Amino acid sequence: MPAPRPVVNLDDKFASFEDRWSPKIIAKMNDLDVKIVKLEGEFVWHSHVDTDELFLVHRGELTIQLRGREDVILRPGEIFVVPRGMEHRPVAAVECEALLIEPAGVVNTGAAGAGDRTTMPEWI
Amino acid sequence: MPAPRPVVNLDDKFASFEDRWSPKIIAKMNDLDVKIVKLEGEFVWHSHVDTDELFLVHRGELTIQLRGREDVILRPGEIFVVPRGMEHRPVAAVECEALLIEPAGVVNTGAAGAGDRTTMPEWI
Repeated sequence: MPAPRPVVNLDDKFASFEDRWSPKIIAKMNDLDVKIVKLEGEFVWHSHVDTDELFLVHRGELTIQLRGREDVILRPGEIFVVPRGMEHRPVAAVECEALLIEPAGVVNTGAAGAGDRTTMPEWI
Repeated sequence: MPAPRPVVNLDDKFASFEDRWSPKIIAKMNDLDVKIVKLEGEFVWHSHVDTDELFLVHRGELTIQLRGREDVILRPGEIFVVPRGMEHRPVAAVECEALLIEPAGVVNTGAAGAGDRTTMPEWI
């Protein structure tokens, strides 16, 4: 049986990078990637046709705009799941640290297609 | 398209129950349950044959004993994934609040079979 991966300390991981909008993989569970990201400013409107997306805010505040619905505001220790297919746009007025969970291989810009903000996550 | 579920505040959810070793569902993402649990004392040795299990400690400290390996100690803001099939036993010397992620329908006592500690999670 393969060895388990080491314990992940979220504060340490967030302290290890500076770039915004570029999720980093910190753990895997079954077919899912557990990622962390620093957000600041506005992302692009997009959706993920085949999967829900879980957000957990670690520090700061995150607004998730939802097409045709009221904005959702997440503060530290708050979780929100964007249902599959729902068009959304994350916006962070000030720097926000968030944890994301979604299947491995999901592209951050989803059905909006590749653009300036499209990145493929790396392990940290 | 169905409405998304409301934002979940972890502190509020943990404050809403007292019982130990009885995970509560707070969110769903695809086929996964996101659960929270209060732990105190020793659980039973068990494994989950078909799935990894993610632990994130919210408050307190959690030791995860792993059969044949060194114990893992998790403090607040720390994540550990127990690989599928790996026999483990959570132990909390003092009360610990933790978030768990695993597929819907997973029984908490796993391959150890039903016993005093077996519970089916409810939504809170």
